[in-house]
Amino acid sequence: MSGIVNCAAYAGGRRVADVQISEVDDALKQPDRFIWIGLHEPSEDLLRDVQREFGLHDLAIEDAHSAHQRPKLERYDDSLFVVLRTAQMNREQRRMDWGETHLFVGPRYIVSVRHGSSLSYAQVRARCESTPQLLCKGPGFVLHALMDFIVDQYFPIVDALEDELEELEDSIFGDSFSRETTKRIYELRRDLLNLKRAVSPLVDICNRLMRFDLELIPDDTRPYFRDVYDHVIRINEMVDSLRELLTSALEANLSLISVSQNDAMKKLAGWAAIFAVPTMVAGVYGMNFDVMPELRWYLGYPLVMGVTLGACGFLYYRFKRAGWL
Amino acid sequence: MSGIVNCAAYAGGRRVADVQISEVDDALKQPDRFIWIGLHEPSEDLLRDVQREFGLHDLAIEDAHSAHQRPKLERYDDSLFVVLRTAQMNREQRRMDWGETHLFVGPRYIVSVRHGSSLSYAQVRARCESTPQLLCKGPGFVLHALMDFIVDQYFPIVDALEDELEELEDSIFGDSFSRETTKRIYELRRDLLNLKRAVSPLVDICNRLMRFDLELIPDDTRPYFRDVYDHVIRINEMVDSLRELLTSALEANLSLISVSQNDAMKKLAGWAAIFAVPTMVAGVYGMNFDVMPELRWYLGYPLVMGVTLGACGFLYYRFKRAGWL
Amino acid sequence: MSGIVNCAAYAGGRRVADVQISEVDDALKQPDRFIWIGLHEPSEDLLRDVQREFGLHDLAIEDAHSAHQRPKLERYDDSLFVVLRTAQMNREQRRMDWGETHLFVGPRYIVSVRHGSSLSYAQVRARCESTPQLLCKGPGFVLHALMDFIVDQYFPIVDALEDELEELEDSIFGDSFSRETTKRIYELRRDLLNLKRAVSPLVDICNRLMRFDLELIPDDTRPYFRDVYDHVIRINEMVDSLRELLTSALEANLSLISVSQNDAMKKLAGWAAIFAVPTMVAGVYGMNFDVMPELRWYLGYPLVMGVTLGACGFLYYRFKRAGWL
Amino acid sequence: MSGIVNCAAYAGGRRVADVQISEVDDALKQPDRFIWIGLHEPSEDLLRDVQREFGLHDLAIEDAHSAHQRPKLERYDDSLFVVLRTAQMNREQRRMDWGETHLFVGPRYIVSVRHGSSLSYAQVRARCESTPQLLCKGPGFVLHALMDFIVDQYFPIVDALEDELEELEDSIFGDSFSRETTKRIYELRRDLLNLKRAVSPLVDICNRLMRFDLELIPDDTRPYFRDVYDHVIRINEMVDSLRELLTSALEANLSLISVSQNDAMKKLAGWAAIFAVPTMVAGVYGMNFDVMPELRWYLGYPLVMGVTLGACGFLYYRFKRAGWL
Amino acid sequence: MSGIVNCAAYAGGRRVADVQISEVDDALKQPDRFIWIGLHEPSEDLLRDVQREFGLHDLAIEDAHSAHQRPKLERYDDSLFVVLRTAQMNREQRRMDWGETHLFVGPRYIVSVRHGSSLSYAQVRARCESTPQLLCKGPGFVLHALMDFIVDQYFPIVDALEDELEELEDSIFGDSFSRETTKRIYELRRDLLNLKRAVSPLVDICNRLMRFDLELIPDDTRPYFRDVYDHVIRINEMVDSLRELLTSALEANLSLISVSQNDAMKKLAGWAAIFAVPTMVAGVYGMNFDVMPELRWYLGYPLVMGVTLGACGFLYYRFKRAGWL
Repeated sequence: MSGIVNCAAYAGGRRVADVQISEVDDALKQPDRFIWIGLHEPSEDLLRDVQREFGLHDLAIEDAHSAHQRPKLERYDDSLFVVLRTAQMNREQRRMDWGETHLFVGPRYIVSVRHGSSLSYAQVRARCESTPQLLCKGPGFVLHALMDFIVDQYFPIVDALEDELEELEDSIFGDSFSRETTKRIYELRRDLLNLKRAVSPLVDICNRLMRFDLELIPDDTRPYFRDVYDHVIRINEMVDSLRELLTSALEANLSLISVSQNDAMKKLAGWAAIFAVPTMVAGVYGMNFDVMPELRWYLGYPLVMGVTLGACGFLYYRFKRAGWL
Repeated sequence: MSGIVNCAAYAGGRRVADVQISEVDDALKQPDRFIWIGLHEPSEDLLRDVQREFGLHDLAIEDAHSAHQRPKLERYDDSLFVVLRTAQMNREQRRMDWGETHLFVGPRYIVSVRHGSSLSYAQVRARCESTPQLLCKGPGFVLHALMDFIVDQYFPIVDALEDELEELEDSIFGDSFSRETTKRIYELRRDLLNLKRAVSPLVDICNRLMRFDLELIPDDTRPYFRDVYDHVIRINEMVDSLRELLTSALEANLSLISVSQNDAMKKLAGWAAIFAVPTMVAGVYGMNFDVMPELRWYLGYPLVMGVTLGACGFLYYRFKRAGWL
Repeated sequence: MSGIVNCAAYAGGRRVADVQISEVDDALKQPDRFIWIGLHEPSEDLLRDVQREFGLHDLAIEDAHSAHQRPKLERYDDSLFVVLRTAQMNREQRRMDWGETHLFVGPRYIVSVRHGSSLSYAQVRARCESTPQLLCKGPGFVLHALMDFIVDQYFPIVDALEDELEELEDSIFGDSFSRETTKRIYELRRDLLNLKRAVSPLVDICNRLMRFDLELIPDDTRPYFRDVYDHVIRINEMVDSLRELLTSALEANLSLISVSQNDAMKKLAGWAAIFAVPTMVAGVYGMNFDVMPELRWYLGYPLVMGVTLGACGFLYYRFKRAGWL
Repeated sequence: MSGIVNCAAYAGGRRVADVQISEVDDALKQPDRFIWIGLHEPSEDLLRDVQREFGLHDLAIEDAHSAHQRPKLERYDDSLFVVLRTAQMNREQRRMDWGETHLFVGPRYIVSVRHGSSLSYAQVRARCESTPQLLCKGPGFVLHALMDFIVDQYFPIVDALEDELEELEDSIFGDSFSRETTKRIYELRRDLLNLKRAVSPLVDICNRLMRFDLELIPDDTRPYFRDVYDHVIRINEMVDSLRELLTSALEANLSLISVSQNDAMKKLAGWAAIFAVPTMVAGVYGMNFDVMPELRWYLGYPLVMGVTLGACGFLYYRFKRAGWL
Repeated sequence: MSGIVNCAAYAGGRRVADVQISEVDDALKQPDRFIWIGLHEPSEDLLRDVQREFGLHDLAIEDAHSAHQRPKLERYDDSLFVVLRTAQMNREQRRMDWGETHLFVGPRYIVSVRHGSSLSYAQVRARCESTPQLLCKGPGFVLHALMDFIVDQYFPIVDALEDELEELEDSIFGDSFSRETTKRIYELRRDLLNLKRAVSPLVDICNRLMRFDLELIPDDTRPYFRDVYDHVIRINEMVDSLRELLTSALEANLSLISVSQNDAMKKLAGWAAIFAVPTMVAGVYGMNFDVMPELRWYLGYPLVMGVTLGACGFLYYRFKRAGWL
């Protein structure tokens, strides 16, 4: 059946059988076994089958079908329903692709449902199978392994956004800020906001998995959730720092635009003054009065030109010293 | 009596009778029955009748009569009084229409009072009647159905506001920002503020319905309120994101206005400089000195014009390269 | 004695006697009676008399004498001391007048002390006396009636400030923002800040009256305090909304000033360019070169003027299309 | 020994003896006595002596020696260590002078250590000695008297800062804002920040003295600490209001600078346009074309001048009406 | 083995033996001894050895290997794992160098692992060894000594950043703000953000060490952690003040840039007006009308020049008085 990526039974930390959804009941007859099912964008029918096998709650299944949930942890009787957002950086198109993963965890099963953009969880399964001493802790440990994997995907994204901020800093403090810079600042803010929305509910989720009395999580697995919690806190903090730096960068940007406008204004004023002098002088000696003695002087022209150029030179020197030019 | 939209008795999840307000007492004599009354902008008399039948508190009835309450949940002895704000987007006039719904919930009755703009709750009733296995849980479930319906009305509104933001982004990052853009940003902020005020008290209301010991809400109905809570949290988060993006957009707007002013300033300065050169030169050769040898040269005119044009061309090239023109 | 507005004994919800301060002891000998005293800017002596009669705490009396307290609720043994700020809008002078009311509430007395600007509490007394079934609940209910009256005075003030904001919006988004607008925004912010300071401590006061174990407040009076609480919350929320909208309005104001400056700059640049062309051309043909063939042409003058006007027209058309003029 | 301002034993609210530090042991042999010592910038030796007599903790003495602590309340076994910041406004130099006072309070002693700028506590001692009925409550009451005195010193400072803000408002909304205004806004913000840092920890300190189970504070002294708490809350609130108003003032300042720039820009543009017209016209009629019929007309000159002046007048009128000039 | 700085056994507050990692077991056979190991950027093998000797948790060792943790305190059964960030100011290059120290504390051992930039802890060891009466409290006291040392390193850094702010203030309120100033404001903000991130988690860590029931910390050591807590709070507050002042400085910067632009604009406008007058007048008398009587007057030229200069002088005087020039 399409949509099923993997469906296996585990006992004592080792994979003992590949099973069909319909055989789950049989597989669970033997005690100390648990089932780990991986689904990828399953059809509604498939989800219904899974629901029937494990007795999942209607509302959880409804949520699992429609993506666009926010990350959350819900408890239905003795099972947990976890929603996580997955993210991948699409470097070529400079944007983030988002996906969602829904996890149903019971005492003897864990079902992962992958939507949208995310890496396959095959390598999580492989890694788990290579450490049977941990995997034998049951579905609680698998939950940790999946969350750890998903959370670790955020680090390269934060790194990419940090690179983006550094490029923006260069273009802000370099000579060439432009409309483009402002747009990229805006887009980076939006990306950080989305990331924040995906990561910040995880703090609470990890906290509950670490501390509250959920019998699905064995006590010796809790330090592992504390590790995930730690990563989440760090990502959160990095995102917050980025947001704050970006705000500072925007303000620096605004300030530098003003400085630059100021400089342009002063340059404009300075050159206007320098040009105004000869224009005015030339205007004066262009007047047609019958009696303008200077016009008759033999050296009138070079004299006037000399004086004018001198005045311009003096203005230039003064403006230069005042930093206007 | 005008103002009454519907008034029916339910037993075991099925509608068993349509009743008059005055017959409510009789209808409730049989156990396991509950009454669901829908009112639309009722007269004061009608409200008083309802109050008498169910023994509602004076203060609650006063609130129900005057609209413009904020969303709240109040408990009077064994009954609940819930105020919710309803909203509809008036796409033509680009504004939101607001209404209010007041709900009185007792162990064996639920009364809904609709004011202002909102959809009829007939379809909620229809949907409830089509799932008798849920409706038989009693007035608590009807409360959920109505709240769910009202909360789900906010999603298209948030979508509409997101569209509005996208349009604003286009006009901000496009070439043509104008006074109009600033005004629309302001209006969108006001709409979001109103929406926030309508939605954020719902978080607390749902929380209390989900968790606190209200015997009106059967235990197996609580996950349904958690579902509503979830939707409320998501709407809240979407509104917060929109508000934050809008703030960023406003700042980008301001920054781009400055950039644009800067560009205009530089263009002005550049062209002023280019025009100043020939004007000054022409002024100089317009002087009436008797002795100005250049004026006598045969090629004086084309030479001066050529040199001047060359200077202008050089300036143009320099300004172009510096990005001023 | 001046300063005493009213001093009466009540029993079973009815006024049974007007008494003198000095006869209070006698009046209270009969059980089930309580005294309600209204003072207006009392002298220190009068306050001392009242203190002696009811055994009020030194610190409370000190507070009652000096106005400029912040709203608060203090408990001294079995009595309460409540400070409230009263406000009235002085529409003519566009400012708010502030007053203070101090309330001493004991098991069998309530004393109100009015300072500064506020309405007389005679109508509260009249209203209470018209509902003996409520007044018979004792001083706790009188406390509610006074607080309700004071809180309801804030609604017209908030309305007035909302009107002020609307006028400001008109002048911001209209054509004529000015220094005056900025000043009024600043003053509105100050008024809102003062209002906020007067209202926000009421949330906590109402909460304590509603919930805590103050035996002065009978259980069936508590829903009435919840009603006051509700009003306080709404006023608080309206003030917060106003503050937020005002901030948005200020930012819109700043943004529009920039837009307008931009427009002025572009207009300046555009017209400068259009004027620069004929000035330059005229300068060129005003040069005194001996050999300038165009000057000799018969149609030189109209030709040059025509070409120049054409260039100006072209520039005008281009600037118009670019939105600069 | 220099550094000791006063050292006296009290019994029943009255000063019974002036003692030497070294005689403290003897003085305390009689029950119901307590010692009140006032030190001013004591030497290390003196502090060590005091430490030995009362068995104070090393860490507290270390803190008392180095100033620049933040206000705090610490408990060491059965004694309290309180650090308070004192402030005085230096009106001539327009700056605040800061000091620190450290208080060691035990069941039978109180030691005050004054550093830097503060008023002498001699008048606190005098006031306490004049109310023996209060002083007999012991060191707990002296602690209150000192804290009350220190907190009340903040009121004139806040008043001075409010005056400063009013002056700033005048210069912002007056015609003459300048670089100086901006600098003073910045300095006022810094002063408010320092004041905030000195006052805000007091809220928590008073709260602990009011509520927590510190047996050093007799129950009937607690309302007095509530009084100090009240003053602290009010100062805090006034500082917060000032900070918020100052932020508003700064924004108004920025907005008015923009408005003023706008006005200057428009004036510049308007006059430039008015001057451009005659300059251009004069240029045209300064051209040297052989055939320019107007030049030959008898009334050419007055006609052209008249038309030009008329155009200038029209422009002036239009700009005036548009508010540009 | 490289990486081991020091490894010694202590008994009764005195160093009794230098031991090898592999001999730790033997050294701990005698009761009342504890081991203090100092490592500097240890190899993976060395860390594994240490892990084996003391039975440390896998996750803690993993963390200790990879730097770039945030400060935290974790408890594994009866041992603590503490991560701290160390900082040193590199004055020459005007930047902060960061390092990390990881501490493993058990009932009878403490291991410090130093990464990156930090001072050697040799002097902490020396100081501890010089106060055996404190050192005999065991690893809990060593933990305090190391934390105290690390926290005290932050004071000179905060001082350096305060100096930096003062320099910035000078350049902001001095005449010469520039692009460079904006850049340094941005960098200072980033440094403060990093410092904040390093220091603020310490508040929580110290709080837990001070208050919670960690049997590793003897009761009489807790006041020493309160001392560290106090320093952390002060550094935190200083950083917050700096951040707030920096924000104010940035706003003052922006405001002053606007003021300066305003001044430049007014100067430009003023001089443009003064130059426009003679240019216009000269243009008028440069016109070639046949009939221009003034041109024929004998004193026409000096008269016109005089009037023009007078007008310019008048304008200059007016602009000067208005503060435009």
